[in-house]
Amino acid sequence: MLPDPTVIAENLIDTINKHEGKIHAFTQYNPEQIRRDAAYLSAGPLAGMSVGVKDIVETEAYFTEYGSGIYKNNQSRADAACVTLLKQAGALVAGKTVTTEFAFFQPGPTVNPYDTTRTPGGSSSGSAAAVACGMVDIGIASQTAASLTRPASYCGIVGFKPSYARYNAAGVKYLAPSFDALGVVTRDVTSAIKADNVLKGPKSASVELPLQKPKRIGFCKTPWWSQGDADMHQALQSAADLFGQHTSLDEVDLADFEEGADLHLTIMSYEAAQSLAWEYTAKREQISPQIAALIKAGQAITRQDYEEALAKAQNLRQKADILFETYDVILAPAAPGVAPLLEEGTGSPLFSRLWTLLYLPSLTLPGMVNKAGLPIGVQFLGRYGADEALLSYGLWAEQILPDRPLCSG
Amino acid sequence: MLPDPTVIAENLIDTINKHEGKIHAFTQYNPEQIRRDAAYLSAGPLAGMSVGVKDIVETEAYFTEYGSGIYKNNQSRADAACVTLLKQAGALVAGKTVTTEFAFFQPGPTVNPYDTTRTPGGSSSGSAAAVACGMVDIGIASQTAASLTRPASYCGIVGFKPSYARYNAAGVKYLAPSFDALGVVTRDVTSAIKADNVLKGPKSASVELPLQKPKRIGFCKTPWWSQGDADMHQALQSAADLFGQHTSLDEVDLADFEEGADLHLTIMSYEAAQSLAWEYTAKREQISPQIAALIKAGQAITRQDYEEALAKAQNLRQKADILFETYDVILAPAAPGVAPLLEEGTGSPLFSRLWTLLYLPSLTLPGMVNKAGLPIGVQFLGRYGADEALLSYGLWAEQILPDRPLCSG
Repeated sequence: MLPDPTVIAENLIDTINKHEGKIHAFTQYNPEQIRRDAAYLSAGPLAGMSVGVKDIVETEAYFTEYGSGIYKNNQSRADAACVTLLKQAGALVAGKTVTTEFAFFQPGPTVNPYDTTRTPGGSSSGSAAAVACGMVDIGIASQTAASLTRPASYCGIVGFKPSYARYNAAGVKYLAPSFDALGVVTRDVTSAIKADNVLKGPKSASVELPLQKPKRIGFCKTPWWSQGDADMHQALQSAADLFGQHTSLDEVDLADFEEGADLHLTIMSYEAAQSLAWEYTAKREQISPQIAALIKAGQAITRQDYEEALAKAQNLRQKADILFETYDVILAPAAPGVAPLLEEGTGSPLFSRLWTLLYLPSLTLPGMVNKAGLPIGVQFLGRYGADEALLSYGLWAEQILPDRPLCSG
Repeated sequence: MLPDPTVIAENLIDTINKHEGKIHAFTQYNPEQIRRDAAYLSAGPLAGMSVGVKDIVETEAYFTEYGSGIYKNNQSRADAACVTLLKQAGALVAGKTVTTEFAFFQPGPTVNPYDTTRTPGGSSSGSAAAVACGMVDIGIASQTAASLTRPASYCGIVGFKPSYARYNAAGVKYLAPSFDALGVVTRDVTSAIKADNVLKGPKSASVELPLQKPKRIGFCKTPWWSQGDADMHQALQSAADLFGQHTSLDEVDLADFEEGADLHLTIMSYEAAQSLAWEYTAKREQISPQIAALIKAGQAITRQDYEEALAKAQNLRQKADILFETYDVILAPAAPGVAPLLEEGTGSPLFSRLWTLLYLPSLTLPGMVNKAGLPIGVQFLGRYGADEALLSYGLWAEQILPDRPLCSG
């Protein structure tokens, strides 16, 4: 049954008004637009759930600015496919959420709801922060390197980056099309399942996934373990210990995947130099030094090196697939530690590069914290294409992990 | 050395003015814009070559309307990546060329330069017609089913649809992202090579490909041969005979690939229902019956059927790759016959569905005609990822095939 649209709209507006002055999760939101949309809410599987739309995704009712002054007041005529699907299913769009510039590193104004001196992570900064303090139920997010997993980890929420190309990205700005993937951030796995069910197809029959215990978990510290800090090491080891009390868990060494992080960087840089060719050529004075450096790096890569990286990536994907004959899920770090201070940037993508390269579905799960109570996510990786299974394992893991601290906002 | 920009601009404007009133290849072109752009022409590998941009590709200087009234006067802020790369390399944009509605079936006003009572083919109608009568040197085109190969065949020009995802599609409208591929139409293979060299990367070092004779050609009549007409049968057999006089050629039976055409239709319909969700939902009264039917068909496909089709497609791709251990190129029909009359639509995509599904690079070559002198292209398919080799074989084939009739325009 459809909840009262007026109540939904006013609750949403109140919650945003309560937090937004401090968090700065939105680039735009408009109470009148929310009320208008609420009046037409449909009784679908997401009826009444609120959505924040990362501002690299086109919308009819709001500007789409990509975190860049080049696109100030840039108005699209249409809603992106993902926005249309969510609205059709009964979701209510709250507004556009802050992205770093072109979903890369240059941060926007959003702060971390757990500690406003810290970054929410990037690039899906606003969606993650808005979900963490309860402003929206679903944040549309995206990932080219670690742009979903990292903010989910830093903000103590669930992040679901599905298998590559699972969601249609029509109306979403390109960064590196070999990796660009839409996903969602939510407060629990059930909400991610609901959103997934809608985003994965034109039809949105309601499907409930069963909680499922993975038979065997591979705990992968990754070749970059030593580049994580003590907080992360302890959080991951504690999570592994917890899971290991309930199912089979052993360490898996992926030393022969180490090259994956560099391959990811090569492919991403090469493709970004194409995707942002216009901005770099016609609007150079308005792009950040980070974007300029990315494009210059991409332009320095030869086509041959790029194609070799693509071929090696494809080989690694085949090797990864075999791994899942042994393990139902891989447990791995989601980020090097807790959210860095704002002045230090949006954090390192290192711990996601390999998984993004491999196209694997990734589920970041909250619950672990450091001594100061700051969240550190843990990451579950599933087999390519087996997104439902990963989400089912996520329901199980959610029961095992500690109750997460409520965010004061 | 850079040719005189004024001469280039005025020649281009004169040629367009000579043909456009009859051919209707452009949705917009603006002599003042052409003169302005010419003044800033850079001395790159495409210096002075003129380009028509299919109107599903965003441009800063012209509206982008996707062949649909929904997007009348729709203004993008940026040039698409492909447009920027071509301009950087010294090409001069002539204007936007007619596309069918959303690159599907509903035709625009363009007619075939060889017979104005006939279709130029779709969806890259304007780019193909503009190239055929010499209005532009390079037409940006795209293909999701047969939208590049078919118009190239009907208009008696070269069509190069590269391996899937070879060119960055940032700023290009989605139809079915599993297949959507940018490509080019030109009057000769050398021009396609020049354009390819620029579009494939952020850097555009000038590379010359050698003419190369394929050691062995597989002539594939395809499982749909009987759905082609006598004109096509004769053109293909004649081309095969010609090639066979110079190299090894034998028939290859791909009966076990027949399912590919249906798999293509399943995947395309499912994804189109997502890509065009906003247009179908918010602007239903402004879409054609063909688009509405496509989306309804896509909505009727289950996620399970879609995923099974994706998996089967992947298997066929692996089988196709093995084929190229025996054959350097596959020779196949490009379309069922010559261009149909305008009232019959833009022609059937049947003869390209399989190859598009397989991600293979495709080169359509002119030279064959029916008794009335209307062009019928022949199609060369290369190994996935081996685009340069295919273009090299194309240089060879171009020498073997009859001189094409000049288009009166």
